[in-house]
Parts: sequence; C-alpha cells; structure tokens
Amino acid sequence: MIAVLKQGTDEQKMNSLIDWLRARGLDVHISRGEFHTVLGLIGDTAHLDTELLESLEIVESVKRVSDPFKSANRKFHPDDTVVSVGDVKIGGGHFAVMAGPCSVESPEQIAEVASRVKAAGASVLRGGAFKPRTSPYDFQGLKAEGIELLLHAKRETGLPIVTEIMNAAHLPLFEDVDIIQVGARNMQNFELLRELGRQKKPVLLKRGLANTIKELLMSAEYIMAGGNEQIILCERGVRTFETYTRNTLDLSAVTVLHELTHLPVIVDPSHATGVSRYVKPMAMAAAAAGADGLMIEVHPNPSAALCDGAQSLTPDDFEALMRAVAAVREAVKNV
Amino acid sequence: MIAVLKQGTDEQKMNSLIDWLRARGLDVHISRGEFHTVLGLIGDTAHLDTELLESLEIVESVKRVSDPFKSANRKFHPDDTVVSVGDVKIGGGHFAVMAGPCSVESPEQIAEVASRVKAAGASVLRGGAFKPRTSPYDFQGLKAEGIELLLHAKRETGLPIVTEIMNAAHLPLFEDVDIIQVGARNMQNFELLRELGRQKKPVLLKRGLANTIKELLMSAEYIMAGGNEQIILCERGVRTFETYTRNTLDLSAVTVLHELTHLPVIVDPSHATGVSRYVKPMAMAAAAAGADGLMIEVHPNPSAALCDGAQSLTPDDFEALMRAVAAVREAVKNV
Amino acid sequence: MIAVLKQGTDEQKMNSLIDWLRARGLDVHISRGEFHTVLGLIGDTAHLDTELLESLEIVESVKRVSDPFKSANRKFHPDDTVVSVGDVKIGGGHFAVMAGPCSVESPEQIAEVASRVKAAGASVLRGGAFKPRTSPYDFQGLKAEGIELLLHAKRETGLPIVTEIMNAAHLPLFEDVDIIQVGARNMQNFELLRELGRQKKPVLLKRGLANTIKELLMSAEYIMAGGNEQIILCERGVRTFETYTRNTLDLSAVTVLHELTHLPVIVDPSHATGVSRYVKPMAMAAAAAGADGLMIEVHPNPSAALCDGAQSLTPDDFEALMRAVAAVREAVKNV
Amino acid sequence: MIAVLKQGTDEQKMNSLIDWLRARGLDVHISRGEFHTVLGLIGDTAHLDTELLESLEIVESVKRVSDPFKSANRKFHPDDTVVSVGDVKIGGGHFAVMAGPCSVESPEQIAEVASRVKAAGASVLRGGAFKPRTSPYDFQGLKAEGIELLLHAKRETGLPIVTEIMNAAHLPLFEDVDIIQVGARNMQNFELLRELGRQKKPVLLKRGLANTIKELLMSAEYIMAGGNEQIILCERGVRTFETYTRNTLDLSAVTVLHELTHLPVIVDPSHATGVSRYVKPMAMAAAAAGADGLMIEVHPNPSAALCDGAQSLTPDDFEALMRAVAAVREAVKNV
Repeated sequence: MIAVLKQGTDEQKMNSLIDWLRARGLDVHISRGEFHTVLGLIGDTAHLDTELLESLEIVESVKRVSDPFKSANRKFHPDDTVVSVGDVKIGGGHFAVMAGPCSVESPEQIAEVASRVKAAGASVLRGGAFKPRTSPYDFQGLKAEGIELLLHAKRETGLPIVTEIMNAAHLPLFEDVDIIQVGARNMQNFELLRELGRQKKPVLLKRGLANTIKELLMSAEYIMAGGNEQIILCERGVRTFETYTRNTLDLSAVTVLHELTHLPVIVDPSHATGVSRYVKPMAMAAAAAGADGLMIEVHPNPSAALCDGAQSLTPDDFEALMRAVAAVREAVKNV
Repeated sequence: MIAVLKQGTDEQKMNSLIDWLRARGLDVHISRGEFHTVLGLIGDTAHLDTELLESLEIVESVKRVSDPFKSANRKFHPDDTVVSVGDVKIGGGHFAVMAGPCSVESPEQIAEVASRVKAAGASVLRGGAFKPRTSPYDFQGLKAEGIELLLHAKRETGLPIVTEIMNAAHLPLFEDVDIIQVGARNMQNFELLRELGRQKKPVLLKRGLANTIKELLMSAEYIMAGGNEQIILCERGVRTFETYTRNTLDLSAVTVLHELTHLPVIVDPSHATGVSRYVKPMAMAAAAAGADGLMIEVHPNPSAALCDGAQSLTPDDFEALMRAVAAVREAVKNV
Repeated sequence: MIAVLKQGTDEQKMNSLIDWLRARGLDVHISRGEFHTVLGLIGDTAHLDTELLESLEIVESVKRVSDPFKSANRKFHPDDTVVSVGDVKIGGGHFAVMAGPCSVESPEQIAEVASRVKAAGASVLRGGAFKPRTSPYDFQGLKAEGIELLLHAKRETGLPIVTEIMNAAHLPLFEDVDIIQVGARNMQNFELLRELGRQKKPVLLKRGLANTIKELLMSAEYIMAGGNEQIILCERGVRTFETYTRNTLDLSAVTVLHELTHLPVIVDPSHATGVSRYVKPMAMAAAAAGADGLMIEVHPNPSAALCDGAQSLTPDDFEALMRAVAAVREAVKNV
Repeated sequence: MIAVLKQGTDEQKMNSLIDWLRARGLDVHISRGEFHTVLGLIGDTAHLDTELLESLEIVESVKRVSDPFKSANRKFHPDDTVVSVGDVKIGGGHFAVMAGPCSVESPEQIAEVASRVKAAGASVLRGGAFKPRTSPYDFQGLKAEGIELLLHAKRETGLPIVTEIMNAAHLPLFEDVDIIQVGARNMQNFELLRELGRQKKPVLLKRGLANTIKELLMSAEYIMAGGNEQIILCERGVRTFETYTRNTLDLSAVTVLHELTHLPVIVDPSHATGVSRYVKPMAMAAAAAGADGLMIEVHPNPSAALCDGAQSLTPDDFEALMRAVAAVREAVKNV
C-alpha cells in the first residue's frame, strides 16, 4: 500500500504516522519527491482501514497495491472453484444453464416451463418466489407458496432449483432450495451476506446495478469470511445512460473476473437487456467471452396469453438459444 | 397512463388487451397515428403493473402520466409533513441540524462531541453504531455497545439521537433511539423498509448512490404503506465520474423533492463530498437551496490525534459552519 | 408524438396550442384523463422541435413515438448498407477487420505492422496520425507525416487505410485516405459531421464515451443529411463506474443497432477495455453478437522494446485472435 | 509520480525501465514490497506520457502525485485570475451575471431582453447564434445574423456579449464579440481549443456532460498553452441517472475548482436543471457555494406567446432571482 503525504507535511506528524504504522506490524519505506513524500507500506495491509488512513490530516491519498479481497483472490487460490449441486457442476470448465420464469405464477406454469427447459438442456430451474419490486403496490411474488411450487417442479423433473432470498429470516423456507440467489439490490446488504456465509448452500451473487467488480468481490468476501466458499458470481448489467436496453451488459466483467477470482461467473442476459430478442445474441456473446453459465428467463406461451414477458423467451426460443450457445462453446473450446 | 402499441398491431390482439384493461376498471381511449396506435388509460392505474403491461407482445412502451407514489405525493397531501422528536421539529419551516461522529468510538469521544455540537446549536446527535463497510475486514462499529454510548450521551445532553439500522432483527436495540436511519446501501432493502413501516419511530431515509429521486420516493412509499408517515429524506450524493469528491451532491434534488413530496428533506454534505473543507460551503448551499436540515460529521480533535477524519469537522469548524448556515437562512427567509 | 398536458390546463391555452400544431400540418387527437389531457400528434413530426414543444408552459412532457432519425432508420431502408473501399466490403454479411498501431510512429513500425496484419487476414490498416489527447503536453501524433507513412504502407501492402480526422480544415490531407474516422470525443462535433456529409469518402463514426445509441444515430444522421450514406458505426465502450477496464464495452449495442439501422456496426475492443489480454475474448464475443467487423490495435514487438501497449496486441497475438474470431463466425453462421 | 510494477517483474526489464526514466531526467526511488515493487519518480514529470508508462508490460499502474495541469494550477499561481471585459470584471471577488435568451430569435426579442436584464443588474448579455443541436433537423440558430442582432443590442445597451462558437473557421464573425463560449459538447474539441488559445478574447469554457473536473482543467490548459489566460470556467450540470432534471448540477465543483485553480468559476443553473422553477434556488445555492457569477436564460414573455422556455425565466422572474442572489451574497460576504 502506498500513502502519498500532503505537500509541506510537518516532519513530526510524519514520524508519528510512521510509528503508528510500524506499531501495526508494517514496514515503511520513505520516498521523498520534489513536491510530495510517499510512504510504501509493506506487510499485511489487508486489515488496515484505508478510509481511516486516507482521513489522516497529513495524507493526500492512499493506493492499494495488493487487492483487498483474499478468499476470493485467484492469486492465493489459483485453481477454479467448482460449485456442485447434485450432479450439476458450475465452473472449472463446467457450463450450466439456469432457466425458468421470472416469477413462479401457478403449478401449471412452473411445471410446463420446468419440463421444457429440462428437455432443452437446462441444468438448473430458476423461478422467483420473493420478488424485489421498486413499488410496494406491484406484485411481490407468491413467497412461501412459490417455493413450494418450485420444490414440486424439482421433484417432478429432478432439476435443482435456484431462487432469490430477500431476508435472512426466511432461511428456513429455503431448506430444500439448492442455490440461494442474492439479487442486485441486496449485493451490499452486508447483514444478509453474513448470514449466508454461516450456512452451507451455494450462493448465486448478482452484481449490483451501479457496483464495480471490486465491490462484487468484496461482497463475495463477506460470504466467504463466514466459511461458505460455494459462490457463483453473476453479471446482469449495470446502469448506464443507454435506454434501448434496461441495463448495459458488461461482458468484459467475465474476463476480468476470471483473472481476479477462482469463483465461477455466469451471465444473465434477460435482466441485463430486458428485451427478449436481444437475449440469444447476448447469450452467445457471453459463451464466447468464456462465461461458466447462463441464467435465462423462459415463460410458457399459451395460445391465448397476452403476456410474453418482454425479457422472457418462449420454450421454443430457448431451445434455439441452447443450440446456438452449444455451437459457440464448441467453436471456442479449441481456440 | 399511456400505452403505445407496436406498428402493425393485430386488431384482435388489441381488442383483447382493451377488454383486459377495462376488466381492471380502466377507461381506454384509442388514438390511431400514422405509425402507431396509442391507448390512453384513465382511472386508478396506481395498482397496474407497468412492467407487466410493457411486457405484452403488442406494446411498444408505457408512460405513466400520474406518479407511482401516492402517500408521499404532495398532490394528495399539499401540507408539509413536520417530523417531531421530543421538542425538535423537522420540516414545514423547521430546520434541524444532526451532528456527531461517523462512528461512536468511546464514551469520552461521544460525550465530548455531544456537548460541543449541542453548544453550537445542533438539535440531534448522530453517531454510527452499526457501520456498513464494503470490506468484511474493516471496522464494523461498536454495535450494541455503540447504541448504549449514544443513549448515555442522550441522557447527559438531552439531545435526541439518530443512528443507522442494518437488520430488522436489531430493532429491539433501537427502542430508545429517536430516529432510525436507513443508509444509502439499504435504500432498496425492501424487507427492512417494510419492517420500519410497521413501527412508529421516525425514519431517516438516505438516497442510494445510483438511485433516482423517484426510486427514493418509492422507498419512502414502502415505509408509508405500512402506516408510518414520519419520514425524513436525505440527499447524500450520487455516483458520477468525478473523483475529487467521493460522490456528487445533488442539491437540485432538494428543490425537486419539495415540489413532489410533503416530506422533509435534509442534506448530508459530509458523506457526499468526503472532504472536510468542502462541507461548510456545501452546507451553506444546501441552506440556500431550501433544505430542512443538515447532517454533519463532527469529530473531537485531541491534540495528539493523528486522525481528523477527511470528511469530519472539528467542533470549532462546526461552530463556524453553524454561524454561516444561520446567516444564509436569515438571508433566504425574506426572498 | 404524444404531448401530455399539465394538470388543470386552461382550455383556451390548450386550444391555441392545438391550432398552432394543426397549422404545422399535424392532426391532433385529444384524450382526456382523470388528471391529465394527452394530445396525440399524427403526421410528419420529424421536423417538429421536441424541446420547443416540451418548453411550452402547459406541456408536462413529450414522447416521440416514431424515431427522430430517418436516413439511418431501418424502417425506411430495410436492406443492409454495404460500405465498399476497393475490394473490401463491410456490412450485409461482409466482415472486415481493421488493424494497426494506435499511433503511427516510424516508417519501420507501420511497415512491419501492415505486412503482419495483412498476412493474418486484416482487410484495412488503421493507424493514428492526428491524436486527440486529454493533455496538451502529451504526444499529439505525427500529423501530416503520419498520413504520409500510412499512404506508403498502403502502397506497399494494398491495404486500404483508416485514420482519424480532428479538424475539417485538414480534409485536403485525407485525399488518399480510404475511410475517415471520427473519434469518440468528436461524435457531437456537429460542424465536423456536416463537413464529412458534404464529401464522399466512407466515415467510421465512433460512439461517444457517455452517449446513447440514439445520439450516435443522430450524429450519423448529420452526415447522411449532407448526402454521404457510407457510414460505419463503431461501438468502443462507454463510461461506467468500473475501473478494471478503461471503458465498458456495450455489446448489446451491436444487436440494438442492427435492429434500428441498416448501417454496418463494428466493435473496437482495444480502446474499450484498454488491456491487451481482454481484447481477444471481447473480439470473440463481438463476433458472436453479430458485429460486422472489428478494429484492433496491433503493435510490433521488437525484442528490446519496453513498450507493448497495454491495449495493443503483438502480431502473434493478433493472428491468434483472427483464428478465434473465424471459429466463432463459422459457428455462428449456421445458427 | 509513482509506478507500481507487476508482481514477479524481471530484474533486467526493471533496470532497463529505470535507465529509460533516468534518461528523461527523472530521479527514481525504488521501494520493494512483499508483492510489488514501487518506483517513485522525482523531477519534472509533467511532460511524461502517463499512458505510455502505464502501457509498459511490467507496469501495473501509475499514479500522478502532482497535477497534470500547470498554467491553470493554483499551486503555481496562487492569486485569483480576474477576467475583464470593458468595465466588467469576473473572479477575485467580482461577481458577474450573464443573462439572455437561449437563442437569438428576432431584433425585438433580443432588444427587449437586453434592456430588461440590464435593468435588473446583469452585466453581460448572452444569446445563442450558432446552436449545437442533437438533430440535424432542429433549429440551428440564426448564425451570422444572430451575431449581428447581438452586436446591435450591445450598442444599444452597452452590455458586453457572450455567444457560442462551434467552428474555428467562424472566428472572423466573432471579432466584436466580448467573450467566446465553448459549449459542453466541444469541451474536448482540442483543435478548437488550440485556436482559441491563439487569439486574445476571453473564453467561457463549459464542462462537458460526462467530464471530470480534471478534464475540464486540462481543456483550459489547452487554451492557456497557446498564450490566452483569460478563461472563465462554467459548471452546467453532468449526466447522471436522474430524470427530473435535465442534468445534475455539481455545485461542489465550484469549491473544488476554487481550490485547484485561479480561474473564475461561474454556474449555469438554466441548462443544468432544464426547468425554470428550479433556476432561482440553484442560483442562490451557487452564490452560497462561492461562485464568481451566473449564466441565466431569460426570455421575454409576450402575452400571447405559447412559449416560455421550460428553462427560461421571464424578465420578472429574473429580477426576483437577482434580488435573492444579492441577499445570499451579502450574507455570505461576512462568514
């Protein structure tokens, strides 16, 4: 870690800072420039509070040279983490597609989608039971009943299930859920992350709408600090000024994350784009970028229905997507 | 609400949409353009799910003409809400300054700050006991002990206290706290908001780092939907590309919020700028923009301390700020 | 176009607005809601000034239903535009890779890169002669001499060349340049766009760092309004809060643009990511997303050189990229 | 300047980098950490190309410790620059209000506005003759004729005038203009900036919509590098995700700029908010934040006119604003 001191810093104050740092077990190298003095801090700075250091009167700025994330860091754990749920593996060369409706709506809906996505090659069933909605007046999901319907579909199809948690107090309802999802809006709900670190189920952690990759990794670190290392990261788009898509899918995040961390990384093009006809090309692009899996919204398409979700594919569309993604993965395998 | 239908929409599908809307108690006016047909929906559209409507195959886009927030809406509640805690009033012409340290650190620290900010004219004592930190390795606050220290300072000075909650399960610890703060990262922790709506203490709701004014009001609506209308909104800066300040203080939000809602609006220039020497001018600007109060970080300044917080004022600085703000408020009163 | 009038709008003012609109040749449909009246404007609204209409006292908001871009609009020109330079075609199924150094530095450098990228399959040589730099103290390119060196490399290899223009007064220097590039910072330099519309060379128009897809299309429209329809659009990343990459590559823009416009769309992963090891996966992803071409920075790698550009590939890296992209394109062709 | 080397950097490569830096006249201090080696570069690094250094294979990151702007830097020019036009002074305690219509429309319009804003205390007349518009189909201003009308109003009222330039080739038309404005979209039109540095008229430089304060100062540096030090900086709002205001006014930029540079800083609340009723409170806040002046849109209000600009004040509104701003400035003077 490097601390740049303010111009004209008093020697005595600098010395007392250096003593304070050494008392924390750090070596301090001093480099005096024309305008500024720079301190190089050597040793275990992971537990040093950057904000505190930056707040010191004589400090102009602080720059971490080593990463603030440890458990999630590939430098210290070079091998890919492989997350397993039943027979399904994610990461380390194992590609998994999680598919299903945005919200669980009825026994018929979830049963039909489950059998269709399984037939098309999905390995995990997704479906929302607790739905975070911006407005308290919008539909909030079927809640406990939604989880029951998912579990029923799991028994019928054998597919493991993933669904979102919004409150650690609901954990008992998730006992038979296979992967617990943390949504974008809760990525920095540190209390929830901490609770999920204390239990053993795999966690699917979505990137927040305006959060950086480093913040995503720090949130993974919260879970891992509790002992749970079964984490799947999910890129699902960030806020930009663009309005033709709901968010902007950041596919370079897949490559950056693969470099920084050993955790598997999947991509959700349905939420990122918010438009069903953009989902297939973005799924193909995600596969080409090296994603370890996909999360895709699929909704049945009864003939009379008004409602194909703007971001949901029909089961037929989903089959086409699976074929296209397989072709891309096959091509990419050998390059 | 207006729904724009896609070019070349099938008449039959349009009619079945219109029937579906009428079945929901809405009047539908049809306006046929050269390229598009537009439906004007008249009636109580507050409970109509915009995303669902937007997701219909034949719908190109949906535009709300009336606001999605009701309880917080000034149109329906023209008079300013005045939040009261003991003798302190906030809103409707009552200006309140909440001041204190970022984190409660020790009995001496909080006692000294409390007496100094009270002497300078603050009407509420702030201090962090539960601290949301990006890294699990950073200091997380004194937690329950921090609240005890705040309550002791409250008894000594008579100042009501405000402190942040991160988990609804901690509510019993907040029994003697006067105002419960929801931090920026929890602005869309809907489960927490809902719980705070079921209890009766005033809530200080901070705007999220990348959230819009409308989203802030929808989060207030979550609390109000539970019956708690004692809400203070707080502008504390949004994420932009600027790096000289930690965030960008959006003072126009004060004016916009005063127009849209009857709830009081305060400003936190300490967190927004992250730099103590920018706090006073931004506090003055907030007062000139019509804010109903301020939240200011103040830290004692013992002679040997390394640490003046980069964003914290000394008690002396705070006194100067209070005089400057009073002068601006006096000038503004008569224009 | 739809104009939503303010609540409680005076009838007389509304009627004078309607007369004013009808005098502009528009039909006006009136839809009266509980809170708001909505005007549907039918006819040629392309030349109606939205900002002016929005600025009227009685108007709350205006929503365009039809797109403000005409010449670039696929609705009116369903067939793909194919841009031709010599034997090279871009768009309509023709894929072109433009490669070369960020800056032209010396005859040897550009000659070596040109022969290497040609051998690897590039069809256009890129290289900067006029360089837009944030600081006036940074290297600004070899200017006229740089163009001379590019032209020499063109004669040697037969590759057409593309290079950036920063000032319409320099146009005479571009007489033998094949494609004129407009950089991200000049995307809304409307005077430059207008001049480029008056000449006949193809223009490569890069998306601005914080510009939307619609703004990109409106800038293309500026060029097309002058009569030049040979435009290649280029996605090169937008500003977000992420710092591991220089910008965030928006690959969904490729899909959106293919839907909205008939113009070819290429992707520049070198500038977007700013990191050479992310360029190949992003190039593959761009190909999977359906891009019509790529722009790639390649720099020779003399043994003693300190400087491999952080975002430049070596010629060997570039060959590997070309093989990978070909494999992806082959896979994608059949899905 | 600090250069952090990559983990496991080869000694020989490091030594050749150090030799290269010393050959550029810099002293190099080496600090070896557990994971990284850090080089402290001492001497005149202003002309060292950061991007080049960052692009070296062995360099992980580079951090400037001293600022890249020199002529604009308060460290080297502690006294405030005062820009003078006729009797009007801006900066160094001199406060100036520039007011007038968004576009010059007719002799009557500009004459009426000019006399009204002068009477209310404005010291400079503003008005657009060349208008940058996103769409080529929107009104582009009266151009040369607009400048003629401004000059006529100048002769009538004695007010100096400010108007925007979009093309250096138009400079001859600006011979009698007093202050030349560079709009937000041209803030990084480096060729235009360079031309304006070669002439002697004061330049009003507006911050770009997504540009940082440092980038604004680097653009000022472009002008100053040519010898023209008469620059007024203008904060006019930045792009954020907020939609109730057109842009988000960044008033903390005023304070930051006063610290970093000696150049005067004015604020344009009309363009920033885009809504006339937010202009007065934001003008008052700007005055409280220490701005050196304001730029305000004022439009006459003929009884039958449909069009009060959404962001323009009437002359009566402007008088009220001037009184309010004077009251705030009076209050602020003594704190």
